[in-house]
Amino acid sequence: MSQCSVYILGSGAAKPSPTRYPSSQILEMRDRRFLIDCGEGCQIRIRQMKLHTARLNHVFISHLHGDHCFGLIGLISTLGMDGRTNDLYIHAHPHFKVLMQPWLDFYCPDWPFKVVFEDVKPNAVQVAYEDKAVKVTAFPLRHRIPTSGYLFEEKPGDRHLLRDVCDAYQVPVALFNNIRNGDDFVTSDGIVIPNERLTAPPTPCKRYAYCTDTKYTETFLPIISGADMLYHDSTYDDAHEEHAKKYFHSTARQAATIAKLAGVKKLLLGHFSNRVASDGCSLKEAKEVFPMSFVAEDQQKYEI
Amino acid sequence: MSQCSVYILGSGAAKPSPTRYPSSQILEMRDRRFLIDCGEGCQIRIRQMKLHTARLNHVFISHLHGDHCFGLIGLISTLGMDGRTNDLYIHAHPHFKVLMQPWLDFYCPDWPFKVVFEDVKPNAVQVAYEDKAVKVTAFPLRHRIPTSGYLFEEKPGDRHLLRDVCDAYQVPVALFNNIRNGDDFVTSDGIVIPNERLTAPPTPCKRYAYCTDTKYTETFLPIISGADMLYHDSTYDDAHEEHAKKYFHSTARQAATIAKLAGVKKLLLGHFSNRVASDGCSLKEAKEVFPMSFVAEDQQKYEI
Repeated sequence: MSQCSVYILGSGAAKPSPTRYPSSQILEMRDRRFLIDCGEGCQIRIRQMKLHTARLNHVFISHLHGDHCFGLIGLISTLGMDGRTNDLYIHAHPHFKVLMQPWLDFYCPDWPFKVVFEDVKPNAVQVAYEDKAVKVTAFPLRHRIPTSGYLFEEKPGDRHLLRDVCDAYQVPVALFNNIRNGDDFVTSDGIVIPNERLTAPPTPCKRYAYCTDTKYTETFLPIISGADMLYHDSTYDDAHEEHAKKYFHSTARQAATIAKLAGVKKLLLGHFSNRVASDGCSLKEAKEVFPMSFVAEDQQKYEI
Repeated sequence: MSQCSVYILGSGAAKPSPTRYPSSQILEMRDRRFLIDCGEGCQIRIRQMKLHTARLNHVFISHLHGDHCFGLIGLISTLGMDGRTNDLYIHAHPHFKVLMQPWLDFYCPDWPFKVVFEDVKPNAVQVAYEDKAVKVTAFPLRHRIPTSGYLFEEKPGDRHLLRDVCDAYQVPVALFNNIRNGDDFVTSDGIVIPNERLTAPPTPCKRYAYCTDTKYTETFLPIISGADMLYHDSTYDDAHEEHAKKYFHSTARQAATIAKLAGVKKLLLGHFSNRVASDGCSLKEAKEVFPMSFVAEDQQKYEI
């Protein structure tokens, strides 16, 4: 069973702290790896955490503030020096290509892989990426510049074969895949053995929502409803709520409110401002609203 | 007496390691701070090392490989958010402005300080910067793209007043500055007291040379001759000498040879490749040629 986890590379805000790098994280879902935002230092964290990038083919950029994308040219540069050959897809606001292309032309002219920009339309709900196992939906957040949140969803997998039951009914091995896909089995006597007796339901599909940077908004609640884990902008604490309003960010309490209203299972608080004390104040305030709140720390892995 | 030291922010090579960031360092000389190269993560190191940037007005970029300059847009961005007002001068190859300007226009359009690009002509010896206390000379290195080394030199300061001697001769306080500047003192009886009796020589001028990236070359020996400290490309060890040749870098032994031939006082080895073992091999090889060799480590300060 492939795991579903998120590796936090950077949980800081616009200005890095000694221990929190600017935003970036790697989501592992159905044997795929997705990089979500790419702040400065991302490639350093990848090395520090000994993460492999062979299966990392897609980068999702929430918005074009520098703390979410200044690390990308360095990462692309190093991936090429490491001999990567898979194309790399960058899902971002259309203007990102305009910014990045001159640097790619200068620094990576004969790179062993292509960098492909896929436009994420601002202020729209759209499927940003989809394959047979995973779907990624972009949706608008509320920030100072066009910003997209992302919902990562596993698609239903096959049902699980109950091998001992199948053997008891003498189901031929050649039919196992059909059984996994939902077929009933007809015995030589013509008796129909329903699929539900031969299989267990598929592993529940995981859903992970990434919502930063954003001020408090309930507009995307239906999209992220019931997600297994939500990573939400928690730049400020209650004492700095005015800053949150002014700079289009959220407090930890507001993040928790969103988590509660959306009925998610776990909330990861992130994008911490240096103004916020490191004494757990934000976490306390969040837990008052949503007990299953956790603080995202750099270089940590969280199971979804 | 103002100190002369270098703070190593990044001592790694093109691909960062978990403990060595890409090249950057801050030189403190005569109460000025100069940033030399600005690899990715530079601003993170500045925060980790709690370095102040108010007196940091000049950035010297050796060449346009990404590991020497990818950190600059993030640093400039953060300096503006921190309310900096002093203009910032970037001394670099003329093409750097072409690369940087679109990002500055997008990310720092109304920044509270100007970013001024000062061209460093490739393949030329030139004074890159000069004021009443410090002179910075750029000179060609030998690398895959145009690259400049930098020599930072203190200018002679005032002679030191011997206060007790001056008081004994009843030198009026109003004449102290003239005495520091070299004047003799004539007593009321007409006796000339020579300056050498009233003052001590000025503090010896410190000279710091930054030479990376470069393959082995003796062309700049006259320029750096006798420097107090040399920071030299030591990307590889003897076992990887072929890599040094191929990629226009140096081995630690070659760096030590340059240090010896130039008659510098101390050698700081830096720009270490991940290929080189961390068992002190490079240092051993360098010390065989030049005993006063030291390995530059990230987040360390070295007195010059």
